[in-house]
Amino acid sequence: MSSPLTLHEDRYFDSDPEQRDIARKLYQKVKNLPLICPHGHVDLKILLENKPFPDPAELLVIPDHYLYRMLYSQGIPIESLGVPRIDGEATETDRRKIWQIVGENFYLFRGTPTGMWLKQELKDVLGVKVRLTGETAMEVYDQIVANLAKPDNLPRAMFDRFNIEVLSTADWPADDLSVHKKIRESGWKARVIPSFRPDNVIDFKFPRWKQNIDRLSEASGIDCGSYSGFIRALEKRREFFKSRGCVATDHGVLTAFTAKAQDADKLYQKAQNGQATNEDNYRFTGHMLMEMARMSLEDGMTMQIHAGALRDHNPLIYRKFGKDKGCDIPIAVDLVHDLKPLLNEYGNDPRLTVILFTMDESNYSREAAPLAGHYPALKLGPAWWFHDSREGMLRFRRMTTETAGIYNTVGFNDDTRAFPSIPSRHDLARRVDSRYLAELVAEHVIEMDEAEEMIGDLAYHLPKKNYHL
Amino acid sequence: MSSPLTLHEDRYFDSDPEQRDIARKLYQKVKNLPLICPHGHVDLKILLENKPFPDPAELLVIPDHYLYRMLYSQGIPIESLGVPRIDGEATETDRRKIWQIVGENFYLFRGTPTGMWLKQELKDVLGVKVRLTGETAMEVYDQIVANLAKPDNLPRAMFDRFNIEVLSTADWPADDLSVHKKIRESGWKARVIPSFRPDNVIDFKFPRWKQNIDRLSEASGIDCGSYSGFIRALEKRREFFKSRGCVATDHGVLTAFTAKAQDADKLYQKAQNGQATNEDNYRFTGHMLMEMARMSLEDGMTMQIHAGALRDHNPLIYRKFGKDKGCDIPIAVDLVHDLKPLLNEYGNDPRLTVILFTMDESNYSREAAPLAGHYPALKLGPAWWFHDSREGMLRFRRMTTETAGIYNTVGFNDDTRAFPSIPSRHDLARRVDSRYLAELVAEHVIEMDEAEEMIGDLAYHLPKKNYHL
Amino acid sequence: MSSPLTLHEDRYFDSDPEQRDIARKLYQKVKNLPLICPHGHVDLKILLENKPFPDPAELLVIPDHYLYRMLYSQGIPIESLGVPRIDGEATETDRRKIWQIVGENFYLFRGTPTGMWLKQELKDVLGVKVRLTGETAMEVYDQIVANLAKPDNLPRAMFDRFNIEVLSTADWPADDLSVHKKIRESGWKARVIPSFRPDNVIDFKFPRWKQNIDRLSEASGIDCGSYSGFIRALEKRREFFKSRGCVATDHGVLTAFTAKAQDADKLYQKAQNGQATNEDNYRFTGHMLMEMARMSLEDGMTMQIHAGALRDHNPLIYRKFGKDKGCDIPIAVDLVHDLKPLLNEYGNDPRLTVILFTMDESNYSREAAPLAGHYPALKLGPAWWFHDSREGMLRFRRMTTETAGIYNTVGFNDDTRAFPSIPSRHDLARRVDSRYLAELVAEHVIEMDEAEEMIGDLAYHLPKKNYHL
Repeated sequence: MSSPLTLHEDRYFDSDPEQRDIARKLYQKVKNLPLICPHGHVDLKILLENKPFPDPAELLVIPDHYLYRMLYSQGIPIESLGVPRIDGEATETDRRKIWQIVGENFYLFRGTPTGMWLKQELKDVLGVKVRLTGETAMEVYDQIVANLAKPDNLPRAMFDRFNIEVLSTADWPADDLSVHKKIRESGWKARVIPSFRPDNVIDFKFPRWKQNIDRLSEASGIDCGSYSGFIRALEKRREFFKSRGCVATDHGVLTAFTAKAQDADKLYQKAQNGQATNEDNYRFTGHMLMEMARMSLEDGMTMQIHAGALRDHNPLIYRKFGKDKGCDIPIAVDLVHDLKPLLNEYGNDPRLTVILFTMDESNYSREAAPLAGHYPALKLGPAWWFHDSREGMLRFRRMTTETAGIYNTVGFNDDTRAFPSIPSRHDLARRVDSRYLAELVAEHVIEMDEAEEMIGDLAYHLPKKNYHL
Repeated sequence: MSSPLTLHEDRYFDSDPEQRDIARKLYQKVKNLPLICPHGHVDLKILLENKPFPDPAELLVIPDHYLYRMLYSQGIPIESLGVPRIDGEATETDRRKIWQIVGENFYLFRGTPTGMWLKQELKDVLGVKVRLTGETAMEVYDQIVANLAKPDNLPRAMFDRFNIEVLSTADWPADDLSVHKKIRESGWKARVIPSFRPDNVIDFKFPRWKQNIDRLSEASGIDCGSYSGFIRALEKRREFFKSRGCVATDHGVLTAFTAKAQDADKLYQKAQNGQATNEDNYRFTGHMLMEMARMSLEDGMTMQIHAGALRDHNPLIYRKFGKDKGCDIPIAVDLVHDLKPLLNEYGNDPRLTVILFTMDESNYSREAAPLAGHYPALKLGPAWWFHDSREGMLRFRRMTTETAGIYNTVGFNDDTRAFPSIPSRHDLARRVDSRYLAELVAEHVIEMDEAEEMIGDLAYHLPKKNYHL
Repeated sequence: MSSPLTLHEDRYFDSDPEQRDIARKLYQKVKNLPLICPHGHVDLKILLENKPFPDPAELLVIPDHYLYRMLYSQGIPIESLGVPRIDGEATETDRRKIWQIVGENFYLFRGTPTGMWLKQELKDVLGVKVRLTGETAMEVYDQIVANLAKPDNLPRAMFDRFNIEVLSTADWPADDLSVHKKIRESGWKARVIPSFRPDNVIDFKFPRWKQNIDRLSEASGIDCGSYSGFIRALEKRREFFKSRGCVATDHGVLTAFTAKAQDADKLYQKAQNGQATNEDNYRFTGHMLMEMARMSLEDGMTMQIHAGALRDHNPLIYRKFGKDKGCDIPIAVDLVHDLKPLLNEYGNDPRLTVILFTMDESNYSREAAPLAGHYPALKLGPAWWFHDSREGMLRFRRMTTETAGIYNTVGFNDDTRAFPSIPSRHDLARRVDSRYLAELVAEHVIEMDEAEEMIGDLAYHLPKKNYHL
């Protein structure tokens, strides 16, 4: 017996009737506002080719490490979920078998954001009518396949239906942004923009660093054999990205360490000669964040720092499947000392916008909010990754608002490679922010008219403002 | 004037009527389920001898460091509470005087788990009818003494009444488990099993380490003069423990550091020669956790790691009263780097179960849940020690469920040496979990039927499964 | 159109009707109790001279770094708010312009404690009738100016109206406390007492350390050229302070490090010779905390340790405006190791009271509460600085009460230099504590009569007791 798949209209609101009533009203104000997606990872080819999505496994399972990391944690081999191995070993190709496993284990996601997003995707985006279980998996599979074949489930139709005002990708500096160009040339009017992510040339230990540098030389027409060439090439590529609509850079770093290195050119040469140590790399990365802040001040691009994810904690999975396979684990970060050089040098300039993301929640109230509540250039990105969730977003608001206010935060961004999950993610954020503000109204911290303004700011205006969109 | 001692049937549920109503229903599903106690510290002699408990001071005060640490913090000498001194100095012997002090200061426990457990013990287990204060202390004393004399308050009768399905103790490797044997031979049908706790031979700095090693040699019949003998002796004792029903090992460690030491035999020899440094000990402990994981993979015993308690912070109390006297203080731990070697080597094998306990709550969402939500072998133990409490358990659920789900946690265990407190502790946990799930239902995160399944899993099925009971 | 400025009588209580009703009753018990202010920073000249406060900018903006740090974070120059520059450069002098900026940006404080305090000050203390916005700023300005001219808004009249039972200041050891004396001699009966804050002579790196030492020699009549003289001078000044009503010392330290330095005299000589390193200073500060504890045990003064604020994070602001300008940022602290020497040496003596303040909230439940729930001398100060707020105080109670109870905390203190904000701050604290206890009653953790006693203890009796007032 299958149960109907339901999404309660009051979901994620506090169950106190007074708060729920206020939350509903606030949510109504913003639920239909366009989505601002200034930090995404969607594969643009989907939108370029605009072909029907093939099946639920390829759409929802294989690209989503949030999903298969949980299944893996319960002993289900990643191979059985069809995720391709980089060493060419076979993995499951029967999409129905993959989906059956997901159905049988969907109970694992109770109370998780993946569970919440997926239910909403299944119902609202994919037209599924029954709850996903082992028993209903094939019925759901068929419903999804049937729905994916319809024209209004083509990627671009979805994009329009999702009401996405702007979608950003993350691109290496040497990228020619040809997919962006082709999309624009296709006559489709959607605003899809790149963002500048130079991790692969700034971090000496990044896979294939030297090749990445060579590609940067080629793309920029500037010889990156020297440090000064490298810097000029980056400046030139930023210019190119900016001309293609780019408004922001993004930096994924292990720690938030920043500091000018007087010997940056020597560090760079050591890396060129394959002699850079971990310490050299640490210092160079810290130096390059300073340089990136300088360039952002000059060209006006918002600078995003994502600090504190230890990548590829599990070498077995890395060896078999490569990067971004659900093995990145947050670490403690020291924002107060690590960001001091950058903030001291550039943080007093209100023309600069540096958006900080951290997964070390103990830092929200201790360091992040006090810093953002003082330095004009610093803003706080939304609750990141594992904390992009009902409880996680609430903790973020509770622990940052009192010191930094909401106006030193930048609203929501979805940070996802799972295209059809975008509306669910924004909807969850809008609901949680409505709930947070409803509590402030019901407890007479703020007035209703203030909350109405604030929910619009959080859902729409703050991201537009801080990413200069 | 004494007030009646009352326990409200809705205690610890959220007061929101909708949530309270759901919590009640969930709690009803599990309140009478048998208790699974896979991690306890009860002195088995109590159950072997099955003699009446003498009086409230000996039953409730002298063995309970949760209780006298709080009294001590307010300036009450531990001596005045009858806790024996290891140097033979006298302490209070008048049990009524001891109980009078507890009565006069029971207000200190308002809002604490000790207060909650004790009220329930007094009422439900010991039949006390009035609230404990300085005025009523002697009246309560008399009520308890009268009740303890009744046959259904004999230890085994209590055990049966508590509905304990299985109770584990914690035993050193050289222990002959004779008390366990005698209990079995007595014809009493209760399931009381040992667990394997090798801290006293793995940690060179443990009191009387060399004697502990000698006893291990003796018990195993293997000469532990060499490292290889030591390892074989441990394997042999694990085998013996397993034959006596043991299902789990337990490791109390200062940090969660793990790493193979190629020179483990040399470190062991240095310890044998009394020359091991703190650094040697640190490395050897980390090495032995690796070895214990290997053995657990081989013999199927669940491995428990309790990391982050700095033992005996107060040397004055240690000198006077010895270990486990309320002077252990949690420290910050780094799970992500410290557990990496162990998880990389053994954590991908779903046949292994490693249960991690931490008191560093800043790690719940940052490190513990992300690790447990990825590695098949890793599960999270319940909120531990100071956090085995109404707020502590809620924080644990709120900060781990979104990333790891509830199925990478192992339900509740009581971790107590206070035998009559066992039902109160499980009841508190069942109430708090019911409350947590009720919130998820009332806020439409999960459906009622899902919550009904989950509360049974948390209260009963998950501990059985993860301890292979 | 201006909206009326309202303060809801149920503000900051939980909106659950049952909890709100209980919170109301608890709050009624304490809302009119006298204010105990044992840790303040009010400029006593205000109370000595007892002249009318000039205008809202000078009263509310220029001295309040909580306020202008937020405005600065949004790009508003501190100069434009009239805060004086130490280099003599001009800053805004038009008080109406300053107030206009505050009005236009007051929305930034939504949800912040500064917003909550200020609304209550404007309405209850200053008689403002409309909400502060850009439109109403001048109207509000005029209302405030008119009200400040009234006799019952003179500083002493306010002091009496606020129902302040005792107000402490923070004073350097060489201070002659003449302002305190003049106030006493003026015949005004208010209890205004000094507290002993020796940071400026204990910390070698404090601005003008050598001059501070010279002044200490002069004030004490003891030559501080040697370490032993320095110690005797401090003892003598403590005696003098005590004779003037002082009941507590206060120590602002970067970390909580404590340890006796056998070579303290050498460290002191190095500092005298201008040769002390940072490490020397670190060790000397740790040593002096030990000495201060010893002296407190001897003279009975309560010892306050405020650990974990990194001062002057922003050198630009420090250069322009000096210390205490909103650029201090909390850091992570290690209480368990750092306080061990002090607690081991003095912490077992219940005659000593050491009150610990930390802004590292991850330490509340992990280290602070377990330590305070064991050592007789250690008590926890209220949620400090950035956490002196609605959410911050709730987190403090939730994370400390279960382990330390409320009786190892010391109630509220306002820690403010903003004189007219004192009642708002105490009122917020009383409301939040009422709310916390109401939850415990509604969830049947404690009984109503217990909560009624506890709210009185938190609001009034605990600070009196722990500061020996």
